[in-house]
Amino acid sequence: MQSDNPTAAILVIGDEILSGRTREGNAHHLAQVLNATGFDLREIRVVSDNQDQIVAAVRALDSSLGGTYDLLFTSGGIGPTHDDITADAVAAAHGTTVEVSPDARALLQARCDRMGVELTPNRLRMARIPVGATLIDNAVSAAPGFSIGHTHVMAGVPEVFRAMVDWLIPRLAGGRPVQSLSVEVRRGESDVAEGLTEIAAAFPDLSLGSYPFRDHDVWGTHLVVRGLDGARVAEAMGALKQRLSL
Amino acid sequence: MQSDNPTAAILVIGDEILSGRTREGNAHHLAQVLNATGFDLREIRVVSDNQDQIVAAVRALDSSLGGTYDLLFTSGGIGPTHDDITADAVAAAHGTTVEVSPDARALLQARCDRMGVELTPNRLRMARIPVGATLIDNAVSAAPGFSIGHTHVMAGVPEVFRAMVDWLIPRLAGGRPVQSLSVEVRRGESDVAEGLTEIAAAFPDLSLGSYPFRDHDVWGTHLVVRGLDGARVAEAMGALKQRLSL
Repeated sequence: MQSDNPTAAILVIGDEILSGRTREGNAHHLAQVLNATGFDLREIRVVSDNQDQIVAAVRALDSSLGGTYDLLFTSGGIGPTHDDITADAVAAAHGTTVEVSPDARALLQARCDRMGVELTPNRLRMARIPVGATLIDNAVSAAPGFSIGHTHVMAGVPEVFRAMVDWLIPRLAGGRPVQSLSVEVRRGESDVAEGLTEIAAAFPDLSLGSYPFRDHDVWGTHLVVRGLDGARVAEAMGALKQRLSL
Repeated sequence: MQSDNPTAAILVIGDEILSGRTREGNAHHLAQVLNATGFDLREIRVVSDNQDQIVAAVRALDSSLGGTYDLLFTSGGIGPTHDDITADAVAAAHGTTVEVSPDARALLQARCDRMGVELTPNRLRMARIPVGATLIDNAVSAAPGFSIGHTHVMAGVPEVFRAMVDWLIPRLAGGRPVQSLSVEVRRGESDVAEGLTEIAAAFPDLSLGSYPFRDHDVWGTHLVVRGLDGARVAEAMGALKQRLSL
């Protein structure tokens, strides 16, 4: 698919995904948001709560550090416990250190005051932000995310992650949203492959995908046309339906 | 967590994940299987149906090509359509080419004979296997996966992926399964962080994780102890419960 939209990657940080305990959902949510707001998501990585792995991935993915993509979004590892090392690792990748941010501290203090609890050293850990970063606010938790370079660091708890995405994405400069049309056929992929190849060749500016599925032992295929120009997408879908006699 | 189990990565190939159309589930399934069969899953990557991206990822992840992990499992892109380029890309990464495999062709021919359909050129595309690879059989689809170097290539359709995992994993030499115990507490992470840090320091051979959640606006935390020695895991969980007065 031809696109001059900003490119993006997502880095998910968390042993709980790699152990199979948790099925990842934050990247799926953000993928939908990014496609709808004009960002071209090219890669997702999941790494463990390991400093070296996180530093290497941030450097490989963030273009401000010589990495591949215009934007990098991370999920997970910014809580108050010993295994929450994302802030330190992202700071290291960006060649800076972590300090308690007065702004983040104020957010946490206000929340603690409202709840009538003490801002303990463990709670204060969540105000540790890389020097030079700006905060990502959210409506659910007082603990903020942060942006540094082209890296945007968000929480792993799904409700907090989504609240941070809601806050952050409108503040970034996206391109054109992806338009897509799909049709379901009760044929196997092999029986639509030839027509699909022809139409894909005739519309090189678009992406034509075929996604096989099984329903009660019968094979079917979802055909999806994607692109930035809605009229072209509609034209290609029309041509595809005609070619496959749908 | 101390482990001398073989290390592993999963590479998911598919625009449908990056577009947000499909929520990834194959890696989640395989993560559970790997942890239960003595493999140490360290990384998951999702890339698009793009030759350069797949080649680069296979080279980075497969130790037989100088990459990081003992084993690499892939999901997706081995069907009969124009966007199914995994076999070609994996062959290129391993410095070989793709040919119609007589064994794979025989599997497809037998299936076509049973179904009374013709083995068309499009169906035959699914017998294109890198030279030097061995086949991965499955009970659902006639189209096989394959293994080359330390890379094991499987289908993206979940039922077929799982059938290939069922066939493949018992044929690989795993280590010791991960043992884990977990407990749910109705406290936020900040309130258990100190005790958790102490117990983690006392059991450096284990992994102690804390996973916050929200339930009707109340914060809770799942505490998980993981390791290869069940007795040590039980000992650590006992110490953790005592420390947190559970």
